[in-house]
Amino acid sequence: MTTPADAYAESLIGQPGSRWNLPTPALIVDLDAFEANLAKMAARAKDAGVALRPHAKTHKSAFIARRQIEAGAVGICCAKLGEAEALAEAGIEDILVTSPIASAPVAERAAALAKRGARLAVSVDDPVGVAVLAAAAAAAGVSMTVQVDFDVGTRRTGVADVDHALALAAAIAGAPQLSLRGVQGYGGQWQHAVGADKRMEAARDGMARLSAVVQALRGHGHDCATVTGGGTGTNAADRALGVLNELQPGSYIFMDNQYVDALAADEDGAFQSSLFVQAQVISANTARWVTVDAGLKAFATDASPPRPATGPFAKDGYFFFGDEHGGLMRPEGAAVALGQRVELTAPHCDPTVDRYDRLHFVRGDVLEAIAPIEAARRSQ
Amino acid sequence: MTTPADAYAESLIGQPGSRWNLPTPALIVDLDAFEANLAKMAARAKDAGVALRPHAKTHKSAFIARRQIEAGAVGICCAKLGEAEALAEAGIEDILVTSPIASAPVAERAAALAKRGARLAVSVDDPVGVAVLAAAAAAAGVSMTVQVDFDVGTRRTGVADVDHALALAAAIAGAPQLSLRGVQGYGGQWQHAVGADKRMEAARDGMARLSAVVQALRGHGHDCATVTGGGTGTNAADRALGVLNELQPGSYIFMDNQYVDALAADEDGAFQSSLFVQAQVISANTARWVTVDAGLKAFATDASPPRPATGPFAKDGYFFFGDEHGGLMRPEGAAVALGQRVELTAPHCDPTVDRYDRLHFVRGDVLEAIAPIEAARRSQ
Repeated sequence: MTTPADAYAESLIGQPGSRWNLPTPALIVDLDAFEANLAKMAARAKDAGVALRPHAKTHKSAFIARRQIEAGAVGICCAKLGEAEALAEAGIEDILVTSPIASAPVAERAAALAKRGARLAVSVDDPVGVAVLAAAAAAAGVSMTVQVDFDVGTRRTGVADVDHALALAAAIAGAPQLSLRGVQGYGGQWQHAVGADKRMEAARDGMARLSAVVQALRGHGHDCATVTGGGTGTNAADRALGVLNELQPGSYIFMDNQYVDALAADEDGAFQSSLFVQAQVISANTARWVTVDAGLKAFATDASPPRPATGPFAKDGYFFFGDEHGGLMRPEGAAVALGQRVELTAPHCDPTVDRYDRLHFVRGDVLEAIAPIEAARRSQ
Repeated sequence: MTTPADAYAESLIGQPGSRWNLPTPALIVDLDAFEANLAKMAARAKDAGVALRPHAKTHKSAFIARRQIEAGAVGICCAKLGEAEALAEAGIEDILVTSPIASAPVAERAAALAKRGARLAVSVDDPVGVAVLAAAAAAAGVSMTVQVDFDVGTRRTGVADVDHALALAAAIAGAPQLSLRGVQGYGGQWQHAVGADKRMEAARDGMARLSAVVQALRGHGHDCATVTGGGTGTNAADRALGVLNELQPGSYIFMDNQYVDALAADEDGAFQSSLFVQAQVISANTARWVTVDAGLKAFATDASPPRPATGPFAKDGYFFFGDEHGGLMRPEGAAVALGQRVELTAPHCDPTVDRYDRLHFVRGDVLEAIAPIEAARRSQ
């Protein structure tokens, strides 16, 4: 739906200075930084000879998924089936769901999506998952592609050892409607380690375990064509270690504060922050700070606070001031009036983006495009 | 829009046991607890002889706003004009916007909403706000009702002293299209103080300041009919002090963990937790915990973690496990399998609700109704 604020924003597209007239709070993507990130990761994957399948849980937007595919990605990842439904509906054609399917209703929705022609692969980490998918695929009369999720050390999802991986692969091979895509190993807990050496060390151990399971699966006659995983934090390690032949980074396009901090000292060049929340001053009656219109509802709050990135404000000058508002410390020597704009970098990009319905793409001072975030909150 | 998961949920309405078959994560309202809260606050306001205008920034839903008005509320509050637009569109007729209007585009949208027949009042705390509203109302050819937002100690919004309040009231009186509704004083920082005596003490000081400004406005010939403010935390104090003639509590309908903790020792009876996020186990391969499908994207994260409220799980047994998942400690002596459901109380209700698109109303084990959250994310 188009709200009055959305309609106003749309009327600004292409106009000089339009970036700074948007209704706020607004989610902003700086196109120059975004495109540089897009090209850099695509080139890295190409040089390494591995497939790039970026994780759409970060952006949840068909507009960005298309840009990633145009830049060379083989498709995208989604965390949940609901995201996959939303992005398939918006025209994205090759989707891997990375969280395990574990219940009949979700398996039935997955079969229905495959039946509608989507190129879909899903994950399992339990015999129950194989059983519900086999039943749903049989009932729908459709073939489905399934991968084994293997736990490389996060203890969150995935089978815990080689024996369980072999049992799942055998169950998949024994189900007429299912075919085995390969294996996934994602080290979530390594991604934000500070220092490339720390991330390399953790990834080396996890990838050795993943390599062992791949060899065991192939030794038992399973094709196991795709070995998928990796993230923005371990991207250099993932390519260097050579176990994965498909990479799933997500946050590289936006580079939130968490990743900027974690990757700051990396030798091979950081990606750039491209995601901002724009706010404006709506009250200015106190001496030390002003009040802006973006608070706890405008940002993910599980990481460090948002950081002012424009205007005369200090990087640590923002504080949360309730659900709807933020405080912004007045800068020394600069007057701040009602309507003053500020863009703040996102503490943690995925749950920040999930709080919005639209992305505003800007280049310099101009609003170039607005795109819906089709899969926001499609977490079922 | 109706997603495949939504359609599945809708098919369950009225069925025995349907509460526990919902697609997850799902936002749940327990009707028995909700209705008890609704009735208790309505009775308190009636007994005190004050108007009740609940704050819809908590629920953002026309379904709940209607229930509040049917129970005796005179109308609702909204934090932002975008919320007011959404709820007016959904048929809610008497709305007060509590954050100050500070820019011409927002003033123009407010005038357009008033022009469409909505019974709307807005707030200002700066001469700029009066000027843009006067201009917008004149351009639209509509009369608008405006209140002065007065800072009772939060230092977030509001004029800082009596002189500035008088100047604003004079500016409103001097604008042919504007009429003065009264004054607002909201003590945001007092609401979560632990102990009724602490909240009374803070409110006493703030309400004394508010009373002084009301007397000054009336002394200068301003009608100042409505004195509005208050919240769930200070509700007892707000009624006892007798300065406010209109109360704006929001969270009492849901009672998140913050408020439950703050009000636990109150003598006059707590409200009950009625808001939950339902999740289910989607991975169970580790010895000490299982993994559920609700993580950082499913909850506000600015307060204490979600607390399991159903099943065999410990109250402190949940931990965030990334964007999409949570860990749930395995209970001693009880097996937990894939598909096991758990409902968790919300850490902080307003920003949790804002992350969803639908409320699922349950009574006992039955899903009774589903309602859209029309004003979610309408923060512009």
